[in-house]
Amino acid sequence: MKTISIIGVGLIGGSLATDLKRHNNVKIYGIDASPAHLHTARHNGMIDIALPQLTVEAANADMVIIATPVMTMNAVIQDLAQKLHADSHTVITDVGSTKQSVIAAFQCYLPQQMPYCVAGHPLAGSEKSGASAAERGLFEHKKVVLCPHEQQHSGSLKKVQDLWHSIGAEVYLMSAQEHDRIFAATSHLPHLLAYAFMQQIATDPQSAQLLHFAASGFRDFTRIAGSNPDMWIEICLANQTEITTRLADYQQQLQQIADLLHRQDKAALRALFANAQQMRSQWQNPNPKIE
Amino acid sequence: MKTISIIGVGLIGGSLATDLKRHNNVKIYGIDASPAHLHTARHNGMIDIALPQLTVEAANADMVIIATPVMTMNAVIQDLAQKLHADSHTVITDVGSTKQSVIAAFQCYLPQQMPYCVAGHPLAGSEKSGASAAERGLFEHKKVVLCPHEQQHSGSLKKVQDLWHSIGAEVYLMSAQEHDRIFAATSHLPHLLAYAFMQQIATDPQSAQLLHFAASGFRDFTRIAGSNPDMWIEICLANQTEITTRLADYQQQLQQIADLLHRQDKAALRALFANAQQMRSQWQNPNPKIE
Repeated sequence: MKTISIIGVGLIGGSLATDLKRHNNVKIYGIDASPAHLHTARHNGMIDIALPQLTVEAANADMVIIATPVMTMNAVIQDLAQKLHADSHTVITDVGSTKQSVIAAFQCYLPQQMPYCVAGHPLAGSEKSGASAAERGLFEHKKVVLCPHEQQHSGSLKKVQDLWHSIGAEVYLMSAQEHDRIFAATSHLPHLLAYAFMQQIATDPQSAQLLHFAASGFRDFTRIAGSNPDMWIEICLANQTEITTRLADYQQQLQQIADLLHRQDKAALRALFANAQQMRSQWQNPNPKIE
Repeated sequence: MKTISIIGVGLIGGSLATDLKRHNNVKIYGIDASPAHLHTARHNGMIDIALPQLTVEAANADMVIIATPVMTMNAVIQDLAQKLHADSHTVITDVGSTKQSVIAAFQCYLPQQMPYCVAGHPLAGSEKSGASAAERGLFEHKKVVLCPHEQQHSGSLKKVQDLWHSIGAEVYLMSAQEHDRIFAATSHLPHLLAYAFMQQIATDPQSAQLLHFAASGFRDFTRIAGSNPDMWIEICLANQTEITTRLADYQQQLQQIADLLHRQDKAALRALFANAQQMRSQWQNPNPKIE
């Protein structure tokens, strides 16, 4: 692989570019509508060629990595479809947080290239964003999920796997549906709950006083409510079905706790807290590498 | 002040002992039912005299600080009442997370000493516990809330204020009701929500798989679900009224989000996320000292 185009050189795209250049002898096209991101990426040597929009040359690189927010994914894939040669074997992959929606977009706009489209999701988000938030080694020992589909060309899948391995990531394969169910549970729902919690504080008439006494538990619990709202609204809508199911289940869980609290059922509440605490401790301790 | 008794030399009591000895010339009695905590505290020089149970001499020190879990607070105060001299002017204070319940216990068991009882709450918890988790400087730049009551002797209040100031803490005064309302909102409810969330994961048939892909957002959001269940069940019951109100309000907030998600009302959801995100960022940035 000699040329790679990265569309969107923000936190993920910029970090990816940095490490791909460190570990591989490749020419990297960086495409970004933001002059600031583009300038930072070019200035810091993350990319070789800075482009404010996708060109035919960049679209037909050996690999195109779409690292834009989920919201612009459809437009980017449409644009890519117009610029790819008809007989293109360019491997196309992405880094979005929802996978059924991306596969649907590939299918819609790139039916001819579908075998070469590989849906991917590196688990290395942050509440920070932009090229200046890019980090060297961001993907080392991080998990990356790839979601092969029915028409998947195995050589293309392998190329994307190799790319992630080359920068130290661990690659897992699963269906897009499985992916979306898992991340609704462990990532999307917690973001929704954290936003809801901060909104409760924000709309309290005495929010300033509440925030003044907020301490470390509050800080960690709400960290993800500092995440980009534009990005998360798109994730929530793209994975609406799975999130809705999970949220309803959580609401039932909360109602059960409200009932136990109302009845002052100490034994049942304690059992619930203890079970939750045990699961949290078990998760953290046998897997010190998980971040 | 020449003698201070600290009942419970765990994370809070042990850290307090460490710093009181560093900054003041006092003799510290450490009282703890756990031989391990007592041994650690004595061995690390946190305390001068290690006692497996409260003695008359220790009860009649210049100040008694109750640093046991909320659950044993009532029993400790009862025990203290039996050992205090009838004409005792010992200043009695505590470090519990709920304050109306502690003031009620003082009133119940120590009606004669009520003026010298000062309800306090240092904001320096952690999901860790025990004397071995004690930290030097734990209270530096941390907030401590004291809740003076109607019968409060101002000299006793001042002594407790001075004590916290001597180890670098910032002291705030407010009523116990105000305190309990604020901490229900910013501390107790998030703990309940985090336990509920971990319980949802724990009871999922595929919990192992979910946990395998849980990443940094999950880690921070659920950190407080690793907190001691025995401690938190007591806090929840001791502050049940305020927590119940706050939880019901949060459930409404969640239902509103569920409705917006169901209707795919992007504009309203986005406005909510953006407002929450803005409040979170404002909180973190102008107050870098808050931990």
